Amino acid sequence: MSMDAEAVRAGVEALIGEYAEVIDEDRLEEWPDLFADACKYLVICRTNHEAGMRQGVMYAATRGMLLDRVFSIRKANLFEPHRYRHVIGPIRIKSVDDGVAVVHSHFICARIMQDGETSIFATGRYLDRIEMSAERYRFIERLVVLDSEKIDTLLAIPL
Amino acid sequence: MSMDAEAVRAGVEALIGEYAEVIDEDRLEEWPDLFADACKYLVICRTNHEAGMRQGVMYAATRGMLLDRVFSIRKANLFEPHRYRHVIGPIRIKSVDDGVAVVHSHFICARIMQDGETSIFATGRYLDRIEMSAERYRFIERLVVLDSEKIDTLLAIPL
Amino acid sequence: MSMDAEAVRAGVEALIGEYAEVIDEDRLEEWPDLFADACKYLVICRTNHEAGMRQGVMYAATRGMLLDRVFSIRKANLFEPHRYRHVIGPIRIKSVDDGVAVVHSHFICARIMQDGETSIFATGRYLDRIEMSAERYRFIERLVVLDSEKIDTLLAIPL
Repeated sequence: MSMDAEAVRAGVEALIGEYAEVIDEDRLEEWPDLFADACKYLVICRTNHEAGMRQGVMYAATRGMLLDRVFSIRKANLFEPHRYRHVIGPIRIKSVDDGVAVVHSHFICARIMQDGETSIFATGRYLDRIEMSAERYRFIERLVVLDSEKIDTLLAIPL
Repeated sequence: MSMDAEAVRAGVEALIGEYAEVIDEDRLEEWPDLFADACKYLVICRTNHEAGMRQGVMYAATRGMLLDRVFSIRKANLFEPHRYRHVIGPIRIKSVDDGVAVVHSHFICARIMQDGETSIFATGRYLDRIEMSAERYRFIERLVVLDSEKIDTLLAIPL
Repeated sequence: MSMDAEAVRAGVEALIGEYAEVIDEDRLEEWPDLFADACKYLVICRTNHEAGMRQGVMYAATRGMLLDRVFSIRKANLFEPHRYRHVIGPIRIKSVDDGVAVVHSHFICARIMQDGETSIFATGRYLDRIEMSAERYRFIERLVVLDSEKIDTLLAIPL
């Protein structure tokens, strides 16, 4: 593995780690900064993803839409307060081409309710396209493919 | 850490990541390819493992036996459809000698039933002996040591 | 990433992996060796941590106190036998300065009771200060910040 490959791995891991951290630590205002201006963020269940559907449980096509999502979470606040805790499986860099890395990883996400009740909320895969530049790495595309179709109606916070 | 150590780490992590991916993504036909021709695959609970027992819940001594297992899963299909999702803890390379790496890691595996019901199915350790060659890394031995003795009778898919 | 940065990452990951392994494999006698003589180990829930409180569910200020904890676990043995299984999310090195690395990671910890019953026991973050020396890496400080306030009274084994 060349030093460059090592640098790519470090940059990719830092971005994916940062993503989990800003969500799990409730620093949602920083979450859109991890995406490029024109981006795709989609949460979809596996069967719909495999059927080629492009609609999901949560969707954004620009960083502005991600900001709107955060704003509505902060403003509306219609759900019972809760937190997530993500753990991420092995991060796999599938290809690196023209400044873009295609990366797959997977996760188990626990949900912690205000009374401390903790359960497995979601499991699934991250299918990413990551823009690599000297300054920083950002998601051009992040598909969150959920293993279960039973998406809790409580899905308010991004996964 | 020398570049070589780095290459070993990258190869080991890729193999362990691939293993989780082919199982969790139901690409079981690719699972035997991750093993050497003569290999050992054993799923066993911790108390039996520590007692020195060599029989487990699932066992194979050749890649052919792994293929048989996949064939019977596809053919018999006697269990309620479900998926796994593995997350792997820190991967620890214990030794590298004569082209063989001894590697320990551990996992939590969630099971997702067809109705979306998700639960922790199994936790445990992977005790691996990995053959390293220029072309590819493969398991010579993978011991799956389960923390719990209560192995669900539903254990059909390899862990 | 320079070779040095790579060496730091490898050392940090090995220490954090070792920590999970000695606890999960019930090699608790080795657990204090992962800390410096003068150290801080604190298990605290998030709300108390954010409120600036310094008391937690478990606390030690020296390696001797960690040894005492292990001794009382082995001696008193007042709780129903159980094991943990940790999986650790992305390890993030926040800074490296003057031989000390500031490192954040997070975890989901499953608990396996003697009858095999497995559940999510705790989730949270590790906030570490790690002493780096040529011989070995050790924790100067490990804060275990739990997501849930509902700490099971069964918390006997360190997290």
